[in-house]
Amino acid sequence: MTLRQLGELGLIRRIRDSLGGGGASVLTGIGDDAAVLALAPGAALLATTDLLIEDVHFRRAWSSPSDIGWKAMAVNLSDIAAMGGVPRWALVALALPEATEPEEVDALYAGMEEAAKPHGVAIVGGDTSSSSAGWVINVTLLGEHTGTPRLRSAAKPGDAVAVTGTLGRAAGGLALLGMGRDRVRAAGIGDRALAELAAAHLRPMARVAEGRWLGAAPGVHAMIDCSDGLSTDLGHICRESVVGARVMLDRVPVAPALRPAAAAAGADALGWAVGGGEDFELLLTCEPGAVGALAAGLHGATGTPLTVIGEIVGLKAGVVFVDAAGEPVAQPGGYEHFQAGARPRENG
Amino acid sequence: MTLRQLGELGLIRRIRDSLGGGGASVLTGIGDDAAVLALAPGAALLATTDLLIEDVHFRRAWSSPSDIGWKAMAVNLSDIAAMGGVPRWALVALALPEATEPEEVDALYAGMEEAAKPHGVAIVGGDTSSSSAGWVINVTLLGEHTGTPRLRSAAKPGDAVAVTGTLGRAAGGLALLGMGRDRVRAAGIGDRALAELAAAHLRPMARVAEGRWLGAAPGVHAMIDCSDGLSTDLGHICRESVVGARVMLDRVPVAPALRPAAAAAGADALGWAVGGGEDFELLLTCEPGAVGALAAGLHGATGTPLTVIGEIVGLKAGVVFVDAAGEPVAQPGGYEHFQAGARPRENG
Repeated sequence: MTLRQLGELGLIRRIRDSLGGGGASVLTGIGDDAAVLALAPGAALLATTDLLIEDVHFRRAWSSPSDIGWKAMAVNLSDIAAMGGVPRWALVALALPEATEPEEVDALYAGMEEAAKPHGVAIVGGDTSSSSAGWVINVTLLGEHTGTPRLRSAAKPGDAVAVTGTLGRAAGGLALLGMGRDRVRAAGIGDRALAELAAAHLRPMARVAEGRWLGAAPGVHAMIDCSDGLSTDLGHICRESVVGARVMLDRVPVAPALRPAAAAAGADALGWAVGGGEDFELLLTCEPGAVGALAAGLHGATGTPLTVIGEIVGLKAGVVFVDAAGEPVAQPGGYEHFQAGARPRENG
Repeated sequence: MTLRQLGELGLIRRIRDSLGGGGASVLTGIGDDAAVLALAPGAALLATTDLLIEDVHFRRAWSSPSDIGWKAMAVNLSDIAAMGGVPRWALVALALPEATEPEEVDALYAGMEEAAKPHGVAIVGGDTSSSSAGWVINVTLLGEHTGTPRLRSAAKPGDAVAVTGTLGRAAGGLALLGMGRDRVRAAGIGDRALAELAAAHLRPMARVAEGRWLGAAPGVHAMIDCSDGLSTDLGHICRESVVGARVMLDRVPVAPALRPAAAAAGADALGWAVGGGEDFELLLTCEPGAVGALAAGLHGATGTPLTVIGEIVGLKAGVVFVDAAGEPVAQPGGYEHFQAGARPRENG
């Protein structure tokens, strides 16, 4: 069977039947003109949206429908996490070719639910249509925030710059997927390293618990998720805060699997870590004196490390990378859509 | 210049600079990971989303960038109107080919703003990326509702079925655009009729004031917007309310320009009115005794007529059309994506 045979109404019914209820906050879910939702009293509303298009943001040769669903949800969860907020409700707009099989749509939603449910997020509405242009998925995620959201514009001169987890695995995974399994094996990269790095690209983990903890912790100023790459995302903080930043390259946390994989592939692990995107780690600036308590507290609460990689240096926009001797070094930039000379590649 | 030369960051800056501020309810707008919004105390949140894809939902040969922007916003405004709500904030996710000119994006946003601003709606966030698949636009619209939203599931046996304005102009406009100006002229359809019907398809008017008025009026039960066509949308009400409906074909309000245009084009005006979609009129069911006061009150408040076209007939799902003698007659269905035998065509 295909969507052409099932029809739009059949598809909507199938989606609606497959999804769990949304809980007490969902006054009206899928099946009306709009969802009706009850925000917690006193909370501010957070809203973010991300559009994923086949062969721009994902390749179906590499990503299963469930992977695509997972990632479409995860990139939005990460945006709410970066505000220090609580994700609550998702709207999913889908356009799919008529020849798509309903089981593929089931798997897409299963992937979205797998990413969303651990965080208590319900899919409450959406839109479906046919597509002349491959798979197109837009997820809008709504969340709540009580307190002060962590904005990109809140960095201050003298702040420490820190990042959760490690960087570069998603870019490494993308590079290895592009090489193909045979060339990866021939380069001496083990299946376990390939699986770890590919998973970082295909099924990124949004730092939701970390974002909530850091968003409520004293001393945190600016926060953003590393979706475009460390250099680009720190650049966003610098531009919005009208400051500069200095990053010590030898402090950038690189996953253990990354360096041997990069060496075997003839690539630069640090380039992946600094210039690659889609790690969805949280990048923040904070009071320099708060770093120790933040790192210990975050690790205690979530098991995730926080690493200081630099500092906010003053009222001059821009990111400078320095080596162990403190000398400035050039660094590859993050990913920017439409960029002159950039080839289309996966990017959330 | 193209988006390839401008770059993604340049585009985001350009969009941000072109948009007005969002007012006091927008705590953080474009430029962070998520928008931060202040809902009115005690209000429920309404959320709806619509995805428009080139050559499925619109053709660039017929729709200017500004038309496309207008329609992407209007179809969402109509969904909030159908709940009886107040539209407030929009998120816009865009994917465009690299060769797109920034002026086309300016016009797209100008069209969205033109549709949104009269209703006090601010664009507060979004997403931009390159597209391998023509123009792709997703608008998510958030609104507020105090009181009881008008759901599809609230129709009761004995209710009158009524519709605002007239039906069929959007389908007529689509048909005339498909014929081309020369054939339309040769068929004896005047430029004014063509312009009126084409505008109904290209720049539909969402019934926002009408939705608010009807949503607060006593006696209104179920409400939906006519986006898929009268027969399909009344079918949605019947299915959700587990009732049946009887529509008197000779009561269906048809715009004055429609019948002569249909006759000249060799088409069926009533088919356009009943089976065509995208009129974005409001279709409602109400206490039969309330109809007079509702029609007079709505006309007084908004200038828009309300016409009774039938009744809810009992606990049997399905829509039946009857002629002036009360005899059931067959009717063409509304538009459904993926429908077997349906050719792709424009549909919001």
